[in-house]
Amino acid sequence: MIDSERFRQIRSMLRRRQPDLTVVMDNVNKPHNLSALIRSCDAVGIHDLHAVSKQRSIHTRQHAAAGSSRWTRLHLWHEIKEPCSALRREGMQLLAATNVAAAVDFREIDYTLPTAVILGAEWDGVSKEAIGEADRTIMVQTHGMVESLNVSVAAAVILFEAERQRSLNGMYRELRMEEEQYRRLLFELSYP
Amino acid sequence: MIDSERFRQIRSMLRRRQPDLTVVMDNVNKPHNLSALIRSCDAVGIHDLHAVSKQRSIHTRQHAAAGSSRWTRLHLWHEIKEPCSALRREGMQLLAATNVAAAVDFREIDYTLPTAVILGAEWDGVSKEAIGEADRTIMVQTHGMVESLNVSVAAAVILFEAERQRSLNGMYRELRMEEEQYRRLLFELSYP
Ligand SMILES: C[S@@+](CC[C@H](N)C(=O)[O-])C[C@H]1O[C@@H](n2cnc3c(N)ncnc32)[C@H](O)[C@@H]1O
Ligand SMILES: C[S@@+](CC[C@H](N)C(=O)[O-])C[C@H]1O[C@@H](n2cnc3c(N)ncnc32)[C@H](O)[C@@H]1O
Repeated sequence: MIDSERFRQIRSMLRRRQPDLTVVMDNVNKPHNLSALIRSCDAVGIHDLHAVSKQRSIHTRQHAAAGSSRWTRLHLWHEIKEPCSALRREGMQLLAATNVAAAVDFREIDYTLPTAVILGAEWDGVSKEAIGEADRTIMVQTHGMVESLNVSVAAAVILFEAERQRSLNGMYRELRMEEEQYRRLLFELSYP
Repeated sequence: MIDSERFRQIRSMLRRRQPDLTVVMDNVNKPHNLSALIRSCDAVGIHDLHAVSKQRSIHTRQHAAAGSSRWTRLHLWHEIKEPCSALRREGMQLLAATNVAAAVDFREIDYTLPTAVILGAEWDGVSKEAIGEADRTIMVQTHGMVESLNVSVAAAVILFEAERQRSLNGMYRELRMEEEQYRRLLFELSYP
């Protein structure tokens, strides 16, 4: 059993989890980016997140990242359409983050709606298939010479805009997951 | 000489540079964090940034990072009080980013004022000396179990809040640096 301070922390975390907010990492593969991304997800209340890998080496690194956090669950997939179909069935809007001028400014999105943000690989960006799956593309406007942000940076900037909107909307003040799942997770995480 | 598309890009970048916005990296030393941070600085219009190193190995890595970008200038220092005094003389508010509950929420700050954000080392966080130099401490509220964000992530979340405020305030629509410096940089960067 854990001490009561730890128990309170776990309970408070679960009470602020946002089951209708998630990310899909499309072949993101650098361990430090995966780890920074998972920390940001935990911070904004994402519990379940998704990663897609075409190559075995990427799969291995994503698999290692999945084991690195007790507080989030990283689901691994081989094809982008698999998590996208699943998330669409859950009623989520699918937003592909990409630094192309044709994309919508990320601040114009309503993130209080069920939302999944798709992030692209360090070199290749989001795949054509991912853009095909997405409802829309979004971008973070930049004012400099460098064409793109680091992927974990772009993710965090977008996720903390979601956090801002959800905070204003009181979404961290009420239990957002099903009561039954909440009880099960509270039990599992408190008796490791 | 460069082509005219490139020239236009450089001119547009310089016209949006924010000489009264900067960061001070207090012993930040992982190359991938330094590089992600420099990209974010370029993106929000920071031209001059600062890094402090106590150890020789950190100095070496910061020095390497300084050379990695043609579009920003990283100034290296040995003691935190050196850049802090210089920036204070320029009239900047000094904000130390730290994940302690006593700190001010980062969104409550007015970033249209001349501002320097101090960021801490990956393991040690911002030093006591840096906290001593700062006018106030600021934090990004988190809702999960993990205690802190990755340093380049925390920096970007804060800098893009500054970018949001400065955009609304029209600060990317007017030349913010001295005309003479603008001409000199335009010349230097266009004739490499
Ligand atoms: C380093 S970038 C990929 C760069 C790649 N060369 C390209 O042009 O797409 C990695 C990922 O970060 C995200 N990203 C980076 N900068 C972004 C921006 N300004 N707006 C939206 N997403 C961005 C995207 O998901 C992108 O696929
Ligand atoms: C990985 S953190 C340092 C963690 C260190 N163990 C500590 O407790 O300070 C590296 C730096 O990122 C910044 N940072 C990380 N999370 C932050 C947060 N929630 N609010 C403000 N700054 C944060 C701070 O500048 C911090 O010094």
